[in-house]
Amino acid sequence: MKSNFDNTGILIKKPVAWLSADSTEPQIAISSRIRLARNIANLKFPITSSDNERDYILEIISGACDKVHLFNEKLSFNMSQLSQIERKFLLERHLVSREFCSGNKGSSLFIDSDESFGLMINEEDHLRMQIFSPGIKFKALWENISQKESLLNNEIPFAFDSKLGFLTSCPTNIGTGIRVSAMLSLPALTLSTQINQIIYATGKLGMTVRGLYGEGSEALGYIYQLSNQSTLGENEEEIIGRVGSTVNRMIQHELDARTLLIQNRRDFLSDFIGRSYAIMRHSYLITEKEALNALSAIRMGLDLNMFDSLDMEKVNALFVMVQDAHLQKCLRKELKPPELDAKRAELIRKFLIN
Amino acid sequence: MKSNFDNTGILIKKPVAWLSADSTEPQIAISSRIRLARNIANLKFPITSSDNERDYILEIISGACDKVHLFNEKLSFNMSQLSQIERKFLLERHLVSREFCSGNKGSSLFIDSDESFGLMINEEDHLRMQIFSPGIKFKALWENISQKESLLNNEIPFAFDSKLGFLTSCPTNIGTGIRVSAMLSLPALTLSTQINQIIYATGKLGMTVRGLYGEGSEALGYIYQLSNQSTLGENEEEIIGRVGSTVNRMIQHELDARTLLIQNRRDFLSDFIGRSYAIMRHSYLITEKEALNALSAIRMGLDLNMFDSLDMEKVNALFVMVQDAHLQKCLRKELKPPELDAKRAELIRKFLIN
Repeated sequence: MKSNFDNTGILIKKPVAWLSADSTEPQIAISSRIRLARNIANLKFPITSSDNERDYILEIISGACDKVHLFNEKLSFNMSQLSQIERKFLLERHLVSREFCSGNKGSSLFIDSDESFGLMINEEDHLRMQIFSPGIKFKALWENISQKESLLNNEIPFAFDSKLGFLTSCPTNIGTGIRVSAMLSLPALTLSTQINQIIYATGKLGMTVRGLYGEGSEALGYIYQLSNQSTLGENEEEIIGRVGSTVNRMIQHELDARTLLIQNRRDFLSDFIGRSYAIMRHSYLITEKEALNALSAIRMGLDLNMFDSLDMEKVNALFVMVQDAHLQKCLRKELKPPELDAKRAELIRKFLIN
Repeated sequence: MKSNFDNTGILIKKPVAWLSADSTEPQIAISSRIRLARNIANLKFPITSSDNERDYILEIISGACDKVHLFNEKLSFNMSQLSQIERKFLLERHLVSREFCSGNKGSSLFIDSDESFGLMINEEDHLRMQIFSPGIKFKALWENISQKESLLNNEIPFAFDSKLGFLTSCPTNIGTGIRVSAMLSLPALTLSTQINQIIYATGKLGMTVRGLYGEGSEALGYIYQLSNQSTLGENEEEIIGRVGSTVNRMIQHELDARTLLIQNRRDFLSDFIGRSYAIMRHSYLITEKEALNALSAIRMGLDLNMFDSLDMEKVNALFVMVQDAHLQKCLRKELKPPELDAKRAELIRKFLIN
């Protein structure tokens, strides 16, 4: 194995790929992602394999990636050699899953330096390919990732059953192994307490709604991840089509909720957004959760043209920077909660004054 | 009776007498007050008297006031003819008690136009004389009010028992009938949760601590009223001396609590004051209670030189203006809570921007 160069240092200076403000539309659909789960045929799943077996899997995949030039500019991260802050840092950039952060031996992340494409090796499956884009671009993402998957498949025989499809560690991924997801900012639906009803309804449509960091996480910053529940019985295009139309419906619901708030509860809405800005601008202690929620409220305020001297780019940059690991990477030191909250507030105040 | 000229219209344009910022000291001791309870000899107390008897009492006192020129420029308010907002307006200016706001027939308020001296007629007692000053000036107040009391006593025989002293409707006022009180702003003691302990301790010293509007009211804006509990067994000078030294001790406690907060919890303190300012500056819905609390936090921030472009005069003016009745008098209309909170927030935002 190559020694672990701390590539997190390269990333810290860049905005994240999944949160971009080059759209003039309301910032409701933040980003889209497609993930494929694959396993090498005739090898045990990572969960039951030994350290040596996991290293062997990593070697196979790494070799195949290099051979087919899968990456434009590959950055690699050996998870077991990263500090806890560095692992959390990758999670905050949505490059790894929460499970992957436990940093098992042989668990490695390869990404393209623009962070638009990545492989988690020895996560739950041997291989988790992920591709990201700001906004909703499922079709383009699918074309891109399926091409990359074919390239790899030329080198690596994937575990496949002619009846079931691709075999995966967890039965919920068997078949296509595809997870199509959208990150949605839904503050108005949350404020008007319609969100639980909508989560329930999307469940009936075979969709899952999760929090900011996927499975089991909280909807920090009023951000939700919508994705397909089953991977079996439909082909990839059908799944993408269903997720896409559900996303469009949720965007419309959020727009309707915003319109209703403006029509019927304008003071309440202005107060909510005004106070969120106020707290970012004048607090001296702020938790990650409060900061993310406030920033999401401000993003909605920007959509509604409530601010003259703020732009979405700046707010989106803050949205990543205020998170615990990014903050500590920025400041180049480990901090405990009270100091962390003070430094976060300081960074936000300075950032908003400039 | 003279017809009820709405003298509240004269007062609305003026700052209140009890909240003044001409001191360079920390704004902890806001104001001092001395109140004397007196009753006319051989007449029933107001609580058991008929409307006619109450009118008769009013006539006697009114005549005596005019005869001895008790007021420099007398304004009179017939409580039963005032609207609820006008009565609340007088309460917010601390010119009347909460009980007096029920507006019983014959209940009238006479004040000097500078609001430094007033008489409540037909409150619990026939006569409640009150004298006010910003800061702590008990001695000067006592000289002034005892002189005024003697003038009136030349015209009106007060109910007096050679053993008990002055007789009053409620036994807690018998004897001297004096209530010496100070309005204290104690945010640091409140924040550091020492306040209940201190209230308990002052109780042991024969003192009572009450909220912003006296008996049974809440400590809005971290403001407390300290006063003597008993009126019997000591002369006026002794009571004034005891209240004065307790006030000094409480000021010292508050200063100590501020020093400790600055030394040990600077971020917490800055955050508390910063957020209070933020909410005043950017909210679109704010209740009376939240506004008063925020303003008190800002007053402490001014004491600690945390603001460049704010002055105590402005904050003190807001402290009165944001209260429900003042706000409605200012806007010349009756408002219900959601609209009231929106108008309050608007007034505060505009006031702080200018």
